[in-house]
This record gives sequence, structure tokens and C-alpha cells, in this order.
Amino acid sequence: MAAGEDHERFELGDFILEGGATLRGAFLAYKTYGQLSDARDNAIVYPTWYSGRHWENEWLIGEGMALDPARYFVIVPNMLGNGLSSSASNTPPPYDRARFPHVDVRDNVRAQHKLVTERFGIERLVAVTGWSMGAGQTYQWAVSHPEMVPRILPFCGSARTSPHNIVFLEGVKAALTADAAWNYGWYDEQPSRGLRAAARVYAGWGFSQAFYLDAVFRQLGHSSLEDFLVDFWEGFFLDGRDANNLLTMLWTWQHGDIGRTPGFDGSLEKALAAIEARAIVMPAEKDLYFPPEDNAYEVRHMRSAELRVIPGVWGHFAGGGANAEDTRVIDAALRDLLAD
Amino acid sequence: MAAGEDHERFELGDFILEGGATLRGAFLAYKTYGQLSDARDNAIVYPTWYSGRHWENEWLIGEGMALDPARYFVIVPNMLGNGLSSSASNTPPPYDRARFPHVDVRDNVRAQHKLVTERFGIERLVAVTGWSMGAGQTYQWAVSHPEMVPRILPFCGSARTSPHNIVFLEGVKAALTADAAWNYGWYDEQPSRGLRAAARVYAGWGFSQAFYLDAVFRQLGHSSLEDFLVDFWEGFFLDGRDANNLLTMLWTWQHGDIGRTPGFDGSLEKALAAIEARAIVMPAEKDLYFPPEDNAYEVRHMRSAELRVIPGVWGHFAGGGANAEDTRVIDAALRDLLAD
Repeated sequence: MAAGEDHERFELGDFILEGGATLRGAFLAYKTYGQLSDARDNAIVYPTWYSGRHWENEWLIGEGMALDPARYFVIVPNMLGNGLSSSASNTPPPYDRARFPHVDVRDNVRAQHKLVTERFGIERLVAVTGWSMGAGQTYQWAVSHPEMVPRILPFCGSARTSPHNIVFLEGVKAALTADAAWNYGWYDEQPSRGLRAAARVYAGWGFSQAFYLDAVFRQLGHSSLEDFLVDFWEGFFLDGRDANNLLTMLWTWQHGDIGRTPGFDGSLEKALAAIEARAIVMPAEKDLYFPPEDNAYEVRHMRSAELRVIPGVWGHFAGGGANAEDTRVIDAALRDLLAD
Repeated sequence: MAAGEDHERFELGDFILEGGATLRGAFLAYKTYGQLSDARDNAIVYPTWYSGRHWENEWLIGEGMALDPARYFVIVPNMLGNGLSSSASNTPPPYDRARFPHVDVRDNVRAQHKLVTERFGIERLVAVTGWSMGAGQTYQWAVSHPEMVPRILPFCGSARTSPHNIVFLEGVKAALTADAAWNYGWYDEQPSRGLRAAARVYAGWGFSQAFYLDAVFRQLGHSSLEDFLVDFWEGFFLDGRDANNLLTMLWTWQHGDIGRTPGFDGSLEKALAAIEARAIVMPAEKDLYFPPEDNAYEVRHMRSAELRVIPGVWGHFAGGGANAEDTRVIDAALRDLLAD
């Protein structure tokens, strides 16, 4: 499926961001799966993740799965900055390229809320779920719109980006921007050397130590460690991904914090306690940047949340859809949540 | 203490490396602490680590400590490539700079063996110990010279560099070399942007998630997370460290594997089983690139080894000498080993 040809577009108009900039003519690219019921009571929002596009969420949607389009109306909004929704790469001057403004997680959720309520007239969702930064948006939905969100299933993500996670992302950013071709965002061609360097930095974080020790990358069709680094990782970062867009989303990620939602005095704990949704929170056992203990802390501060760890060696990418067993575990949890 | 003024020099002559190159006029820079006994039976070798210099090992040596210069003769040889021993930065043409050859862990141990036997006439050591790559050299000493090494205490290191560790180092290398100023090693001034990027990549790996969550860097005198990244990490990489030297040692690290010692058919397990030394192996509980399970595996294959985990949140830098409690734990283990 070619990028950009299989989705809908929702106009946000002059969209004022948390940071003060106005994105004129802003829009969300999104795709829906299934049919909205007449009562508009079968919708699930499933946001994208760092650099992900809607089609990269589809592994968790399907006939016979929890997110079954025969039963639910699944809305996948592309994150601002991902290259399909308003982004550095597709915004006309003067807010284009290096001038594309900072986007907060709350900006994303506000845009998605407009989509859900204005385009579809939905007043209450069935659930929100998402991987990684999608999990962060899931938490933000539950905090910003508790009356609309009865269930959440954030997986391999957190309600607030931890200091260590911020540092990991600094490494990715530093590698990308060490390439002089990046030119502070004013490049004409992608700074591919910096993108490849960022990919190699990311590689150590995305999967666990045990994943590499056991050479599990062979299951993904890679013939050697170096082949995995080149074909999977460098290929991933070169696959239609834009440097400024990656930096936009990286900023969004680093600044994710539901505690900064108005009314909570910057307190993560207060914001967690305000979540009304029933939650199943799913860290991956060996996730190196969203370690299970951070989710355990969150769950202790939530009203109705269960911690359910995804076991195994895949680390963060347990939530990426590439390992059938992990997909089964996440799907089963979604089924439990939706049955409740 | 100024670099380069407080140590001795041992000439290696025309030193043939495992990779086939001859380093003509090669030398080891080293420093000793204490007095060699008349019987030459009180020597301990304590190699340096990735980018470390002998004075950065001194925190574990001192009056009243296990490595007490009043009792032992502690030899700290600088690793080849660290800028004090033969390195890209101090070798004359034609093997200078980008042409400096690959150095294996076994080359380091062979050079150190010459120093110990030829300069000091030592036939048997009391022990070998070291942090990180120093632990790798410790293992190599025990495998290459079992008759000389009755005790080892490798801490926060491994006998073979794991695939994940190799990937982590690829990220560091990619960040450093993404800077065009690196110029494939033919720079006239240090590629400081690449060095700073490498430092930021390293930052996420050096300390644990919990270290950052608890802002333990404040104990080191850093006022904020960003201050820690700039002052500690970027400062660390800019502190007299040379890009080509860092790449030399990175190659050494990536290729560390006692199983490649002749006689073991590439088998880590066979090489571990051949170690005669009594060992206390000390991983740090939350070390992200030398995880305790890798050392546990090693210990299961050794004849007389105890696994003793350094508890706490400092991660790899538990072995760096900056945290008094970790230093106490390592020192106590050394005391136990030496009493045996």
C-alpha cells in the first residue's frame, strides 16, 4: 500500500498549539477500520507511535482479533509530525521545515478529539489503546477526557517520559544532528548519514540484550547482526522518514507528561488518580526505555488499573507487531478489557 | 596531576599485533603503586578501561584498602590506544591517525605480560582485576596465563563482548563518525561535535534508568539533567580524548572474546573452563551493557567462581569509583579474594 493514498484528511483549521504557535490549515491524516454504529458507540481510538504511520498499526486490527472491524470502528489518527498529518515536511512556508513548531502530546489529543467529536459525532469511546508514544497519547486521552474514555490499554509506554528516556532520545538526536548535512533543519536532501547514525543508536534500545544474544533477529529474516543493523534499522529510518519530522516527534516524546495537563499542578500522581478509565497497562518485560517498574508505579496511583507484563526478550518491540506471541498476549488483554 | 608526566614507559619494540600489523617502537605507559617485594610475589595487575587512564584507576588503590600499596605492588598498564600507551594519537607515520591498526584484547595482555615478566621479573601474580574493558583484560590474563594468575576479580565486564554490547558501541561509533569533521580519521582538530554526540549516546547506557529517575547525578554536583549531559558526559569525552583513539579501543572492545584464544576452537565455554584462578565476578545490578545474567552464565562455566552482584542504581558506573558505597562493596570483595 503506498503511503498517503489510503487515508482520509480532517481539517483542523487554524490550530493553536500549546507552545503558542498557530498552525494555519493544519490537518490530521487518519484511517478508519469497520463501520461506526448508528448509536456511535463502538469507536476505539488507536494513535500512532514515534515515526509510525497508520498502516504500521494494522497488525493489531483484524477479523477474529480484539480490534475486530466487524464489531468496532477503529480510528487510527496519525500523530502530528509523522509526515502524513501536519508536519515539517508537508507544511508550506513560513512554518515549514526547521520552523515547524513544537507539538505537545496534548496538541495531538486535542486534534484527535476534534476529529472524533466533530467529524463523527462520537460522545463516548469504547477504548483508547496504543504502543509507545501511542501509549502516551492513550494516557493523555484518559486524563483530558475522562468522561469519554471508559477503558485504556497503553502498551510499552508511559504517562510521563522518564529522565532516562529523555537521555536515550538525546543520543538519537545528537547522532542525527551530528551530520552537517542536517544543516539545522535546512537540508534539501535528507541527511542520510545522520539518519543512519540515529538508527544505529536506536538499535541498542529497541530490542533487549537477550534478543541480540539469542540472535532472534534471524526470525525477522536477517542473516547477521550487521544485516539487521543495515536492513532493519537503517532501512527503517530511511523508509520515507524525514529528519525534521523525527525531531518534531522526538520533542513531543521528551515532553510527554500528563501531570502538565491543567488542573494537576504538574503532578503525575494527581493526574493518574484522576483517570476514570479501567486500565490494563502492559510493559514489556525487557523494555529498556519504558521499564516495567515505571508502569508499576503508575498503576499504584490509578483507581482501576492492572499491570500485565508482556514476557519475553523482544523488549520495546514486543509492541511493534513483529512477534506473533507478543501480539497474541496484547490481543488477549484487549479482549479482556473490551469484555469488561 | 597532568597527563603524561607521572608514569613510566616500557618499550615493546617491534610489536606484532594479532591482526598482522607491526607496531614499530611500540610502548606501554604504566604506573606502579607500592614496592615490589624481594620475592617478587606481591604484584597485582589492574588494567585500564575504555578511554581510561591510569590515574582514573586510583580510586580503588589506597592505604587501608584491599589494594594497599603498603602491602601490594599494583601495576596499572594503560591500554593500547588510550593515548598514553601506543595509540593513533602518538604513533609516528605511517601507522598514525586513521592508519593505526586494530588492537585485540590479547595484544594488550601480551604487552602487559612482557612488562610484568621482562621489566619486573615476576613469575606469578597475586591477582588481576579491572573494570569494564579492564575486566575483559582480566579474563584474558586468566586464560592466556593460567599458571601466573591465581585470582581474578573482573567487575562490570565480560569474557566475551555480547552482541547487544556490540550494537550499543555501534551507536557510539555512528554518532562520532556522523560528524564530517571526523573525516575518516584524517582530522586536524578533534571532531568535537561527533565527540559530544557520542557522549550523549553513551549517557543513556552508562547509568541506569533508576539513576536518572532519582536524579542521583545531583550527588555528583550536577544541577540538572542537561548540566549532567554537558558537564559530565560531554566534558568526559572532550577531556583529552582523541577520536581515533576512541575508535581503536571501541574495536578492541567489540572484538573481545577469550574463546578466540588459540586452543579453544572459538568456544567461550571451553576458555572459561580453562581458567584456573579463583574468581569473584561482580556485575552491577542495573548495568545496561554488561547485564548480570551474562556473568552468571560465565560463572556457571568456571571452576571456582562466585557471582557477587553490586547492588544499586549506578549501573555500569558502579565500577567507576564515583559512588562510595559501590567502591566499598568492590573493595570488600577484593579483600575477600586476596585473603583466600
